[in-house]
Amino acid sequence: MNYSEEALKLHEKYKGKIEVISKVKVENKDDLSIAYTPGVAEPCVKINENKDEVYKYTSKGNMVAVVSDGSAVLGLGNIGAEASIPVMEGKSILFKEFAGVDSFPICVASQEVDDIVRTVKLIEPVFGGINLEDISAPRCFEVEEKLKRELDIPVFHDDQHGTAIIVTAGIINAVKLIENKKIEDLEIVINGAGAAGIAICKMLLNMNVKNIVLCDKEGILQEDSNGINWAQKEMLKYTNKNNEKGLLKDAVKGKDVFIGVSRPKMLTSDMINTMNDKPIVFALANPVPEIMPEEANKSGVFILGTGRSDFPNQVNNVLAFPGVFKGALECRASEINEEMKIAAANAIADFIPEDMLNREYILPKAFEKGVSEAVAIAVKNAAIKSGINRV
Amino acid sequence: MNYSEEALKLHEKYKGKIEVISKVKVENKDDLSIAYTPGVAEPCVKINENKDEVYKYTSKGNMVAVVSDGSAVLGLGNIGAEASIPVMEGKSILFKEFAGVDSFPICVASQEVDDIVRTVKLIEPVFGGINLEDISAPRCFEVEEKLKRELDIPVFHDDQHGTAIIVTAGIINAVKLIENKKIEDLEIVINGAGAAGIAICKMLLNMNVKNIVLCDKEGILQEDSNGINWAQKEMLKYTNKNNEKGLLKDAVKGKDVFIGVSRPKMLTSDMINTMNDKPIVFALANPVPEIMPEEANKSGVFILGTGRSDFPNQVNNVLAFPGVFKGALECRASEINEEMKIAAANAIADFIPEDMLNREYILPKAFEKGVSEAVAIAVKNAAIKSGINRV
Repeated sequence: MNYSEEALKLHEKYKGKIEVISKVKVENKDDLSIAYTPGVAEPCVKINENKDEVYKYTSKGNMVAVVSDGSAVLGLGNIGAEASIPVMEGKSILFKEFAGVDSFPICVASQEVDDIVRTVKLIEPVFGGINLEDISAPRCFEVEEKLKRELDIPVFHDDQHGTAIIVTAGIINAVKLIENKKIEDLEIVINGAGAAGIAICKMLLNMNVKNIVLCDKEGILQEDSNGINWAQKEMLKYTNKNNEKGLLKDAVKGKDVFIGVSRPKMLTSDMINTMNDKPIVFALANPVPEIMPEEANKSGVFILGTGRSDFPNQVNNVLAFPGVFKGALECRASEINEEMKIAAANAIADFIPEDMLNREYILPKAFEKGVSEAVAIAVKNAAIKSGINRV
Repeated sequence: MNYSEEALKLHEKYKGKIEVISKVKVENKDDLSIAYTPGVAEPCVKINENKDEVYKYTSKGNMVAVVSDGSAVLGLGNIGAEASIPVMEGKSILFKEFAGVDSFPICVASQEVDDIVRTVKLIEPVFGGINLEDISAPRCFEVEEKLKRELDIPVFHDDQHGTAIIVTAGIINAVKLIENKKIEDLEIVINGAGAAGIAICKMLLNMNVKNIVLCDKEGILQEDSNGINWAQKEMLKYTNKNNEKGLLKDAVKGKDVFIGVSRPKMLTSDMINTMNDKPIVFALANPVPEIMPEEANKSGVFILGTGRSDFPNQVNNVLAFPGVFKGALECRASEINEEMKIAAANAIADFIPEDMLNREYILPKAFEKGVSEAVAIAVKNAAIKSGINRV
């Protein structure tokens, strides 16, 4: 199937993908008097008396804003707010289809951090959570940090944390298939030090991985790398313990895991053969991964994951974000913290019974029933355990 | 039926009234690849090449923002953004139910004109129209004017123009029932010089009504009235041709039409009896009108309209705004101009065949089938005639 062609047809036929419908019937005068004036005044009064009741009488508690400035859309780069809408509407329908969470695209016509932050703050009343999407690094870190500080509802940049959760889940399961390896002892290379790469790195550090080497276009990231940004510099404090230098091909030597969130064809089978025994490779560049399966399989690769649904072990964010928000919203968590993200990764990993796990099945498939629900429960429990739930 | 009680139950049961659903199916890998990645990249590319295609491939063309700051909600006053949500969600479902127009509540957590304007401008990419709602006067005039100037999509403050359209429709039909009266010759008193009062006044002036007297709390509005604002001062240039002074009871003497958008029980049957023969009274304060029908009917009132669905001749904005936006969106009008509003008023008036018109039926009822469609066609044609359509 030609997805591009079919996508154009579909988007044109339906004029976009979302619609806003009523949960209540409006068929006669009485319906109107209850859903609208005069009856509607009463829930308004209740909320005015106690702002918290906004969760009781409005859609806020199950409504997520999908916020983007269109600065880093898919593989397309900085295409701006309007051109990002099809992706954000897509995200919206996935929230609904996979977890019953309502969401609405907010595509901001400015790429100034303060504009984005201020806009989201001002429209926050109707939203129970904020999903940031396709905002370029390092601005995405600032936007997220500022919003987390200023809002008391969950703020989650899916390109960062969604991807990190799935990769972590994949690694948890990959390790189960390898005798005598523990996550914390893995030697890991991450190629690509943007939003996803840095978030994956942070999450793995939180999983107590001791040695991670971050690479960017020029090879192993250094204090004086060309164009290094503040977020990358920050990561140097916690990564590259052995002070390695060189190119990606140097970095992968003797490592257990390669994680690519970079560009097509950065990795070769020869490079994989310089890695440790039973190498684990996540080649997540989309649509063309850092190494194609055909090429990778010429090497001794043990586990290969990509971003694509037509290859095994797809790292698909839809496994995480719908359930993460569902769980956070259900207990009205004030944020999505590290514990909740790790709980989500474990829930995704544990979704596959150990006797079913194999090299080509370390991650659930997108349409396996029950993933979002399992994630939601785990995330909710973690929130409650952290004491950040409010119901 | 106790509407307040039922409204609380309904809003709590459903947790608000809106949900955001998918127009396309997402049931398998192929669906996902077309509605989301990788297929979705193609409509993004097209929009990036030609911004206008956002109307072709996204929901923008049928999506209205229902924007409020909660500063003047129903009869409740300034209850703020959160407490206004039930009303805005109500508006949203009316857009959908009455005209198939999608809309989403944007409740802004600031009552600064510039914050509201800037927020709406920044989130405009996903919206094809802006419906302003329950923003207090005179700030609402500023917000609307600035947005109209800065955006090239329709901006419409329903409390103003929706109400003005229906009242105008009502007057058009009322006059048909009175021999030898023409709209332009009517002597009209408007009690209440807020958003609705001023908009009704402007619209009637555009219908060539020669003499309108605006009253506010202190009686007939004067240059030196207590607390008079700039918008009211502006209206003095075009109203009160005979330089009348005094209280409301003085103003109504010898007038043909009373329009109340003020407070309960401002009008008495004695006052009506000082009006011209066959007085036309719109008592639109809600839920308790300026005069109750029982009281009004003690006088020689000829036509009585209220805001309530349990009395005849309800002035219900739902007759106008869904169709107005539908018509404007269908031809992608750059604004909603005077001609379009007058077309809407005429369409509503003409919806009732002349042989069916009577004193208790000068306005269609909310649930009469076809009103929105008739309004939409009239508005669209008027837009095309004005040359402000873009398709």
